[in-house]
Amino acid sequence: MPKIAIDAMGGDHAPEVVIEGALLAARDLGAEIVLVGQREAIEQELAKHPDAPKLYVVAATQVVPMHESPSVALRKKDSSMKVGFEMMKRGEVDAVVSAGNSGAMMAIGMFVVGTLSQVARPAILVVVPSLDKGTVIVDAGANVDCKPIHLVQFALMGSIYAERVLGVNSPRVGVLSNGEEESKGNELTRAVSEQLAAVPVNHVGYVEGRDIFNGKVDVVVCDGFTGNIALKTMEGVASFAGEVLKDAFQKNLSSKLAYLISRNALKQAYRRLDYAEYGGAPLIGLDGVAIIAHGGSSPLAIKNAIRQACDAVDQKMNHHIADALAELDHGAGEKKAGLPQKLWNRFKSKIESIGEKSEPSSSAEERRRSGES
Amino acid sequence: MPKIAIDAMGGDHAPEVVIEGALLAARDLGAEIVLVGQREAIEQELAKHPDAPKLYVVAATQVVPMHESPSVALRKKDSSMKVGFEMMKRGEVDAVVSAGNSGAMMAIGMFVVGTLSQVARPAILVVVPSLDKGTVIVDAGANVDCKPIHLVQFALMGSIYAERVLGVNSPRVGVLSNGEEESKGNELTRAVSEQLAAVPVNHVGYVEGRDIFNGKVDVVVCDGFTGNIALKTMEGVASFAGEVLKDAFQKNLSSKLAYLISRNALKQAYRRLDYAEYGGAPLIGLDGVAIIAHGGSSPLAIKNAIRQACDAVDQKMNHHIADALAELDHGAGEKKAGLPQKLWNRFKSKIESIGEKSEPSSSAEERRRSGES
Repeated sequence: MPKIAIDAMGGDHAPEVVIEGALLAARDLGAEIVLVGQREAIEQELAKHPDAPKLYVVAATQVVPMHESPSVALRKKDSSMKVGFEMMKRGEVDAVVSAGNSGAMMAIGMFVVGTLSQVARPAILVVVPSLDKGTVIVDAGANVDCKPIHLVQFALMGSIYAERVLGVNSPRVGVLSNGEEESKGNELTRAVSEQLAAVPVNHVGYVEGRDIFNGKVDVVVCDGFTGNIALKTMEGVASFAGEVLKDAFQKNLSSKLAYLISRNALKQAYRRLDYAEYGGAPLIGLDGVAIIAHGGSSPLAIKNAIRQACDAVDQKMNHHIADALAELDHGAGEKKAGLPQKLWNRFKSKIESIGEKSEPSSSAEERRRSGES
Repeated sequence: MPKIAIDAMGGDHAPEVVIEGALLAARDLGAEIVLVGQREAIEQELAKHPDAPKLYVVAATQVVPMHESPSVALRKKDSSMKVGFEMMKRGEVDAVVSAGNSGAMMAIGMFVVGTLSQVARPAILVVVPSLDKGTVIVDAGANVDCKPIHLVQFALMGSIYAERVLGVNSPRVGVLSNGEEESKGNELTRAVSEQLAAVPVNHVGYVEGRDIFNGKVDVVVCDGFTGNIALKTMEGVASFAGEVLKDAFQKNLSSKLAYLISRNALKQAYRRLDYAEYGGAPLIGLDGVAIIAHGGSSPLAIKNAIRQACDAVDQKMNHHIADALAELDHGAGEKKAGLPQKLWNRFKSKIESIGEKSEPSSSAEERRRSGES
């Protein structure tokens, strides 16, 4: 049975809601859970649930607030996030789950466990509902300023995730852009499109914001700045549409009656749209399983994120990714027969040289270089 | 009465739907309308409406397709878009309306009429519904790779638009980012935030995708790539939510009955959400009135875009912007007492030097330089 470390201090309503979710998971999933955080606060919460299953508690004296910059968070030697990742590195747990600061999770994860071989940057992978099986968005917020090679790797990892975890055959991978035509896109997306031509993914070209939902694509690739804005815009529209519907149904007596009659259908539709309840977002590419749950997660969402961590461990997700990357190297090496040798060598040496870098926060100089690559 | 040139060949369903919209506008608004495009196609459509008011037709032999790159479109000497702008330049019409290729509209507009004094780049301004009076998004898609100074100018123009047209007092201007905290943002947004500190707009810092709708901000500033993705994501979510609702209501007999009873409330909510029907998007900053309607516009949406063009002309929108920019120069000059003189001078000389540039499509070299600024 997988052992999961939960960052008890992470999230908008921590530790209360996080601990409620952890207790749900312990009861319903039978998962072995370790709560990491400030012992007193955790025990105070646990005391409210005298009949709940017993959870392990590991003390960590420091907290990473939601709005702290990753570089500041990184300097905290005894934060609940860092202690969780260190336990995973030592093999004491199999996964880390946090509803906290996602930038800090990425930075601390990079620092403590690092990335899988050949992966330059882990990314936040989110599955949003769609008219098809759901759409993978990667990166949904971890890396704001990206080089083309990062997006190429996101495409590879997202494609593997969609294939192995969502069971999509030959997932269609699209680069998020401001139009479908080749003439569209910005500097970054144009460079990515060029490089993706040399990589064995089912690249369908540019996709637009609306294609995230219409079943036209399985994996949407973008930098974390753009991905975060798309994701938060979705949340905003969904919540605004909810308010507008509420207004419309509260207008008069007959609309109020209509609401009472429609309530079930509306709730059902809402649940299908509320992706936050689906679970958390894996930090894909990290050498270990780390799941970020939404900051405003309900106990149910926390439980679902823990379930996702268990699944990732049970399914040996990272072995699949590492294997696939190795296969990819080999397979693409065979495939390259049809490609210009020089282009392939340049691509391969780029992956390798960037894979060596492990500095989590990029300096201004590095960002400038990245703008030119 | 304003004279409006309509690009009869622009849009997903041109010339049919465009001409239907133009006829609606001629009848309902009493606007004086000039249809610009391929004479035969236009007259064929007009023949279907024998009882409609007579519209002027000006022949243009070439069409700019939706997916043509702006640089190719620019080379067409007799496109309906170009002829429309040339009529505006000669004073034969007061405004140009098109449901066509927005990138081409911007490029041709820049080439034929140019920008208002001091404006480096016109931008697409869209007003989306929100819990407050609606939110201005600028740039919603015209400029994919932006320099900080472009976003600073979008902030100024957006603020003026919100104040003069939407009647918002001291509009709150936010820069779209991946989080509210100062530590968030990418290279571009960080530089913009720094420069906005020296500009007299009510700058409220970073806003997130969800803030577009919740009434927290009146003007959302971003580059056109990000703005386009946010806008298309909105459309995608709205249309997906519609499908999900339809599914939920079609599930069984009682849900179908519930739909019949709720239909009015649902339709009312839908109309409030469907921003495309609100009208078009002004190309703000251009020396002339140009409105881009959604490519998939209905006749009603075309009519509303024409109404918007009439309003912009009647309200002397561009005079207000030019005045406000001049005032801004003066007012900010006074305000600068409290600001470092050097910073102000640098900002001012930047506006002026960039204002001289009028090359619409940027070369790779220029884009590289812009990445470094």
